[in-house]
Amino acid sequence: MYIAVIGAGQCDSKIEKIAYQVGKLIAENKAILICGGLGGVMDAAASGAKDGDGITVGILPGETRVGSSSSLDIAIPTGIGEARNAIITRAADAVIAVCGEYGTLSEIGLALKMGKPVIGLDTWQLLRNDAYDTGMIRAKSPKEAVDLAIESART
Amino acid sequence: MYIAVIGAGQCDSKIEKIAYQVGKLIAENKAILICGGLGGVMDAAASGAKDGDGITVGILPGETRVGSSSSLDIAIPTGIGEARNAIITRAADAVIAVCGEYGTLSEIGLALKMGKPVIGLDTWQLLRNDAYDTGMIRAKSPKEAVDLAIESART
Amino acid sequence: MYIAVIGAGQCDSKIEKIAYQVGKLIAENKAILICGGLGGVMDAAASGAKDGDGITVGILPGETRVGSSSSLDIAIPTGIGEARNAIITRAADAVIAVCGEYGTLSEIGLALKMGKPVIGLDTWQLLRNDAYDTGMIRAKSPKEAVDLAIESART
Amino acid sequence: MYIAVIGAGQCDSKIEKIAYQVGKLIAENKAILICGGLGGVMDAAASGAKDGDGITVGILPGETRVGSSSSLDIAIPTGIGEARNAIITRAADAVIAVCGEYGTLSEIGLALKMGKPVIGLDTWQLLRNDAYDTGMIRAKSPKEAVDLAIESART
Repeated sequence: MYIAVIGAGQCDSKIEKIAYQVGKLIAENKAILICGGLGGVMDAAASGAKDGDGITVGILPGETRVGSSSSLDIAIPTGIGEARNAIITRAADAVIAVCGEYGTLSEIGLALKMGKPVIGLDTWQLLRNDAYDTGMIRAKSPKEAVDLAIESART
Repeated sequence: MYIAVIGAGQCDSKIEKIAYQVGKLIAENKAILICGGLGGVMDAAASGAKDGDGITVGILPGETRVGSSSSLDIAIPTGIGEARNAIITRAADAVIAVCGEYGTLSEIGLALKMGKPVIGLDTWQLLRNDAYDTGMIRAKSPKEAVDLAIESART
Repeated sequence: MYIAVIGAGQCDSKIEKIAYQVGKLIAENKAILICGGLGGVMDAAASGAKDGDGITVGILPGETRVGSSSSLDIAIPTGIGEARNAIITRAADAVIAVCGEYGTLSEIGLALKMGKPVIGLDTWQLLRNDAYDTGMIRAKSPKEAVDLAIESART
Repeated sequence: MYIAVIGAGQCDSKIEKIAYQVGKLIAENKAILICGGLGGVMDAAASGAKDGDGITVGILPGETRVGSSSSLDIAIPTGIGEARNAIITRAADAVIAVCGEYGTLSEIGLALKMGKPVIGLDTWQLLRNDAYDTGMIRAKSPKEAVDLAIESART
């Protein structure tokens, strides 16, 4: 099972801790972590997954591995820029969004478009006509997020 | 100047009329219309642009032109699926979102990530920590949307 | 009908003239020219197509239109680097290779893999087990190349 | 270090044995094997790498893992079709081509365009103006190919 963690390349230490916990729990659930391979949430999640004895994969936007997280087992420089967001979501059985900026927003959209389960932690709130969209499931803790991701990825 | 119109492949007639007007005004402003090349908002905008004597380009997700809008001057089947969303936004000097589903949400995110001006019409409302994100400018009419897009694309 | 002309971003004046003739004849046959949008063969073919009153489309590798041919009606910066070669061949009903370097070689391979007709002019010679591969049809003149491309694209 | 093995999705048992040996030697040299993730040469190389206690990564063209080699540690369905060939070569420090059809030809071209070392085993012969191109280094055995790949990837 492959779980993607998406989030910004820069984040504060509170978000970093959440991402780390998410990554660790993914690993403890024997799922492979996929991420964008850069810093911030991506690096923290990968670091957590390594501490949980998991496997970590980074799908990088650039042409080289320069600037990639040091906690990746597999780093794939794609050279296709932001279009690599579609590969991260395509390769995931479920996606967990931790906080995040516009890149994360795009990945939430891509994942939902592809019919993948998306779990949100402290992330974007999405409304249409003043009503909350129900496509993304909101979790209150790393544990709840990973439990929901694993469960939804199975079905 | 290239203006992208993004929106769902299926929509009701009210949204169709808005998209048509947006496309027509883009053409009347001598900008080239870029879209995803399929039905719904994309087709309506392309149809409007043709009625405004404009040029229309569709960046298609599939491997063939089957199912593409009949109002496209140039139809580019990419064969890269949803990753083509990143090409639509990359090729645009400004983006107008008309209503839209998850694919549109991903394009809003991609465009904002790329630093492109994004104008929203009856589309997603984006909040973080219960505050509206100010990245996307909201317009109240097709005319306001196109005026804002043209103006922001120039700068 | 869409005909792609593929070739190197830099070439000598003899090759330029051939590419120009190919582009002009494509336009005179009412087909749309697709190319990689940069200099050399791409620019010369686009220039010829414009002189033949045709429509020209460039699928660019970079994130901007900087450095693109001035003879393009439509320039699409993709931001996906060399992966854009697969879009050029996907969008073409037939492909004409004029001379060319390694990028052209990759496009010949991609086009043949996709089952597209490929016509070669002064380009790569491909052998397997010391026997010439028959996938690419070799032409002796711009006119023969374009005639073959138009004919094969129709079937 | 990442070494890509490229080759056709179907091949005879002689080529399969060569690909298997190449994969095994890559693993024994502690390099990570990257491939297209499907059958034939890709599957045989991955199988060899697993028997050599290595790590195997498949970059798949489709939207799912259906039909992928059973010897992959990491399988990445990209959903971008043949454009994924550019990711395989981008992610590799060196590329070994084993026999191969048109897809392999495109990957040879992409790798050489990107400036990656390419080693050929029983694969395409490339000529321009009746002279062999010297971009791809030809090897006579799996051992020579892997030695050359490792050596050239280091520099």
